[in-house]
Amino acid sequence: MPIKSRIRTIPHYPHQGIMFRDITTLLKDPVGLRATVQEIAQRYREMKIDKVVGIESRGFIIGTPVAYELGLGFVPIRKPGKLPSETVGRDYDLEYGSDRIEIHVDAIQPGERVLLVDDLIATGGTAEAAVGLIQEMGGIVVECCFVVDLPDVGGRARLENLGQKVFALCEFSGE
Amino acid sequence: MPIKSRIRTIPHYPHQGIMFRDITTLLKDPVGLRATVQEIAQRYREMKIDKVVGIESRGFIIGTPVAYELGLGFVPIRKPGKLPSETVGRDYDLEYGSDRIEIHVDAIQPGERVLLVDDLIATGGTAEAAVGLIQEMGGIVVECCFVVDLPDVGGRARLENLGQKVFALCEFSGE
Repeated sequence: MPIKSRIRTIPHYPHQGIMFRDITTLLKDPVGLRATVQEIAQRYREMKIDKVVGIESRGFIIGTPVAYELGLGFVPIRKPGKLPSETVGRDYDLEYGSDRIEIHVDAIQPGERVLLVDDLIATGGTAEAAVGLIQEMGGIVVECCFVVDLPDVGGRARLENLGQKVFALCEFSGE
Repeated sequence: MPIKSRIRTIPHYPHQGIMFRDITTLLKDPVGLRATVQEIAQRYREMKIDKVVGIESRGFIIGTPVAYELGLGFVPIRKPGKLPSETVGRDYDLEYGSDRIEIHVDAIQPGERVLLVDDLIATGGTAEAAVGLIQEMGGIVVECCFVVDLPDVGGRARLENLGQKVFALCEFSGE
């Protein structure tokens, strides 16, 4: 397991009871970074992807080398006010309060086949909002791809219930 | 100029009088992303770099594919409170107020040769703080690498006055 074994767990971060899955130990290792990017790229090489979209900011770290390896362009989805040109945005609920993500209106053309990438799926709220933004622009989300899935938290099921395909390189469940 | 010509200028963002250099148009173009990563990687392939460090968050977008292409690991420098394990941090001045960046204490080993990457150098304040953090951990900053240099703002001269080497793929000056 070149990938899962290189992910570090930080207990009680950022809150008591949370087991935080830290991918920085995976990324700083040349073998870990290479395996992560190549496993993802290998899966999508024949799926006729037009563009890779990554969610700020750990999704940038995974999504950009995947786009590069596949010979595609990369589009960032960012927190509010971070993108300089015209955007569309979407609000979504958090455990406490809400948040918002935005994308440039000219980032995706109607009919483009998009791979959505983030480091981790937990509740799936951010990913659901991102899927909505891509669809609002006429893009087709081919699959939602993560390094880590936390199946106990339900995000994969939430996206699959929306008709989305979900892929993750590894899972952490009750460990 | 496959790189400079793909960077979009947004006048008066985020403030009146600022010409914002927007690399999202470069990155979403497969030719632009590929040329950016390969030009940088080509420069450093023979320089015995051990690790690539990128500054949150556009530095992640450039730094990670460069690390991947060079077969190296990637280390993020982040805003306060974003890294889950033990960190060291450094405050630096902004035009109005101050900011802070942090790095994991176990991210760099003493003597490692580091390439520091960000999308753009303006005043150089963030880059100077990042160089200080890497040096505090015993790392050697081989060069500070940017996609865009704004020479009129003085960041390159500031870093060079500290003894740092600076490289940028393109410059915008009074345009």
